[in-house]
Amino acid sequence: MGKKLTSRAEDYSKWYNELVVKADLAENSGVRGCMVIKPYGFAIWEKMQAGLDKMFKDTGHQNAYFPLFIPKSYLSKEASHVEGFAKECAVVTHYRLKNAEDGSGIVVDEDAKLEEELIVRPTSETIIWDTYRKWIQSYRDLPLLINQWANVVRWEMRTRLFLRTAEFLWQEGHTAHATEKEAIEEADMIMHLYADFAENHMAVPVIKGTKTESERFAGAVETYCIEALMQDGKALQAGTSHFLGQNFAKAFDVKFANKEGKQDHVWATSWGVSTRLMGALIMTHSDDNGLVLPPKLAPIQVVIVPIYKGEEQLDAITEKVNPLVKELRSKGISVKYDNRDTHKPGFKFNEYELKGVPVRLAVGQRDLENDTFEIARRDTLEKETITSGDAVEKITTLLEDIQTNIYSKAKTYQESHITNVDSYDEFKQVLEEKGGFIAAHWDGTTETEDRIKTETKATTRCIPIDVIEEEGRCMVTGKPSSFRVLFAKAY
Amino acid sequence: MGKKLTSRAEDYSKWYNELVVKADLAENSGVRGCMVIKPYGFAIWEKMQAGLDKMFKDTGHQNAYFPLFIPKSYLSKEASHVEGFAKECAVVTHYRLKNAEDGSGIVVDEDAKLEEELIVRPTSETIIWDTYRKWIQSYRDLPLLINQWANVVRWEMRTRLFLRTAEFLWQEGHTAHATEKEAIEEADMIMHLYADFAENHMAVPVIKGTKTESERFAGAVETYCIEALMQDGKALQAGTSHFLGQNFAKAFDVKFANKEGKQDHVWATSWGVSTRLMGALIMTHSDDNGLVLPPKLAPIQVVIVPIYKGEEQLDAITEKVNPLVKELRSKGISVKYDNRDTHKPGFKFNEYELKGVPVRLAVGQRDLENDTFEIARRDTLEKETITSGDAVEKITTLLEDIQTNIYSKAKTYQESHITNVDSYDEFKQVLEEKGGFIAAHWDGTTETEDRIKTETKATTRCIPIDVIEEEGRCMVTGKPSSFRVLFAKAY
Repeated sequence: MGKKLTSRAEDYSKWYNELVVKADLAENSGVRGCMVIKPYGFAIWEKMQAGLDKMFKDTGHQNAYFPLFIPKSYLSKEASHVEGFAKECAVVTHYRLKNAEDGSGIVVDEDAKLEEELIVRPTSETIIWDTYRKWIQSYRDLPLLINQWANVVRWEMRTRLFLRTAEFLWQEGHTAHATEKEAIEEADMIMHLYADFAENHMAVPVIKGTKTESERFAGAVETYCIEALMQDGKALQAGTSHFLGQNFAKAFDVKFANKEGKQDHVWATSWGVSTRLMGALIMTHSDDNGLVLPPKLAPIQVVIVPIYKGEEQLDAITEKVNPLVKELRSKGISVKYDNRDTHKPGFKFNEYELKGVPVRLAVGQRDLENDTFEIARRDTLEKETITSGDAVEKITTLLEDIQTNIYSKAKTYQESHITNVDSYDEFKQVLEEKGGFIAAHWDGTTETEDRIKTETKATTRCIPIDVIEEEGRCMVTGKPSSFRVLFAKAY
Repeated sequence: MGKKLTSRAEDYSKWYNELVVKADLAENSGVRGCMVIKPYGFAIWEKMQAGLDKMFKDTGHQNAYFPLFIPKSYLSKEASHVEGFAKECAVVTHYRLKNAEDGSGIVVDEDAKLEEELIVRPTSETIIWDTYRKWIQSYRDLPLLINQWANVVRWEMRTRLFLRTAEFLWQEGHTAHATEKEAIEEADMIMHLYADFAENHMAVPVIKGTKTESERFAGAVETYCIEALMQDGKALQAGTSHFLGQNFAKAFDVKFANKEGKQDHVWATSWGVSTRLMGALIMTHSDDNGLVLPPKLAPIQVVIVPIYKGEEQLDAITEKVNPLVKELRSKGISVKYDNRDTHKPGFKFNEYELKGVPVRLAVGQRDLENDTFEIARRDTLEKETITSGDAVEKITTLLEDIQTNIYSKAKTYQESHITNVDSYDEFKQVLEEKGGFIAAHWDGTTETEDRIKTETKATTRCIPIDVIEEEGRCMVTGKPSSFRVLFAKAY
């Protein structure tokens, strides 16, 4: 395991980077900005995928798959979209390598230059709307509710595991509707679906809202979002859902015949969450001992560690443990019985603490004699001794309790880190000393947003959906404002 | 639906291309050689993924994710590997676009040229073995059993939906072992796993075997494969599993300390199946009316079509159908009740026939009066009238029966299309007139294989694992041979 983690208080950023690697979640690869998601980290992501995928299907969406590559010309068709993505995209220019004539290795074969360069998708609106043109003729073809699980590439200059990587995994929903109202309802529904997933699966409380104009997706009319708060007081955008108006339908000429037989452009949404959620999950719950996972997403929910001397004792423990393992599995609980003889119990305890396994059982000689288990919960690190007969019920209850407890803890933290401020000085002070979300009046201009960002590094996170109308004055310019916007430093 | 499918007899290739598009499985995209997998096609692929993924996990494998990009220099490290893939790879050379100075649109920004070109992965051995070097130190780290679901790109010049596309989806397993024996056992086990999946999920009979040297994977010591036979007498390689020896461990310097503390290079396997399996599935079972799907992979296993005049009759039918739908779903059977009022029953019958839904129920006024359903099976197109009370049992039995029946039919076809020949003339004649697998003696040289390929377009498909030792002479050169090899024209 190596030496202990850097503590959060000492260096939050270093703590995160170390934790991701030490807990076997991910690591940097030999390719700049691209990560390797290790089996343990990927198992968590798979559970996220399964949870989300079911929610998408339950709300009528189907999965499909569109090409990795986007012809350069497609990107240009929607003006603000190309502006947003052209500056950070991987460009394929050739389709073959050859042996260098001087024998120095393999080089790009200049005879195999593409007529039109291809962009590795940074997001798929353009290629998908080029396809939808063929799929949509009539109102009968609508709504079209499609999702794709895919990898995308944005050439970020400063990358961090899960939070910002050149390649990342995500899902992107792309829907087409007959009316503006329906499309807005879809975008809004997905924001609520994302919030539901974040809160009830990830145990991550979020604030639902809409983005200000300058923070909107490139090509969107409105961007709905969920914003989470990390333990260092920085916000993290955890998911976005965009109402695209008719922008892409017009750019790609996607029209349909309505019930009256008249041609109209289609209304659109797109929405996505990515492996960035892994970063949110890690930073919301984990502590100085390592990862803390919500039971619903933990690849191993219960680990059982035998404490023994010699094979005979191990056999007795195994005999005691086997029926419990069987019963837990029959209840759909994932259990690992770690009887490896290559590592000592203390090493195993540290390992599972680091990896955030919610419940740990230990069984030693005394437990054999007394028919007990020692049970420990990862979130509070509390331990107790229970009788074997109570184990299944105790474990079941504990898993539910941990799920609830870590959510409550994060929710309490979030609620105590939303501060109303009424002056720019107070804003700067709270930002510096406390962090978190700051609710302030703002004049609604991008100019003021830019100034605040430059001077404080804080950005508008969202206008909460439950925002209260309240007359006030912009903390910077003094111009009138009718509601508070949430600001924060963000990942 | 448009006009009828071209028949198989008329033009098999055209029949396939039309079927893939008309059954809503996939279509060509605006990007050369890249396909769009449509929701219905993707739903079948998802079922394949789920089945395979479970089999991989049940045999101890874990999923992970490795970068899309491979630095050019990595590819060169294994000599035969680069030889195999350099000629058909997409090359990323730049990471930014910019507005053209003449205002003509966006162009590649030459200031954003990569120091080292990146290849879009055609397969991931190189990037994965570069990573394994960091993961493997001791025999305790072995075996390392990892799988990845991913997209890969091979710049094929002639593409066909599912069968050969520039981008395709696949899984690639990459395992590391302490001994040669273990690695060979793994590669062999996976071949059997693939055969099990093909036969028991896809209902596609396959022949298991090993490839001749010239047909081996670039970098493999031995390639195990499963070969299926399509209805036009052409073979289709449905999955491969490679024993890689220590080739990649040596190229990427991956060593481990064995139990005796001595350093040794690791032994490796890699194995994969792809969306090509969709092609095999479609071509094995389908007929001139459209797709025929094995119930285990059918997104919709049962469709119920009401035949009615007016809303009142529809309501009565719906009332009759609802409890059946509920009961079937509770048994895990996927049912669609198609009560759309935008299409006539005849249209729906054609649509579900085209889409290969295994079981179709129709309910009309007479069925209401007699408490019956009309039930039709897609594979044989047989229909009968059953009483409502028998419906669940009948459907359950029928789904099993269809799964078995289409396998048997394909197996009978395959068995009747393996022909022993003893002369090159006979070989050419059988190839021309009958097709299928031809078992013939061959002198074991690549030279002779090349000659046969050039003259007849047939290639060696495999040396079957149950091949019988038999003295003979090569049908082309007359040189001695001790077993027969299977030849065929292949996709």
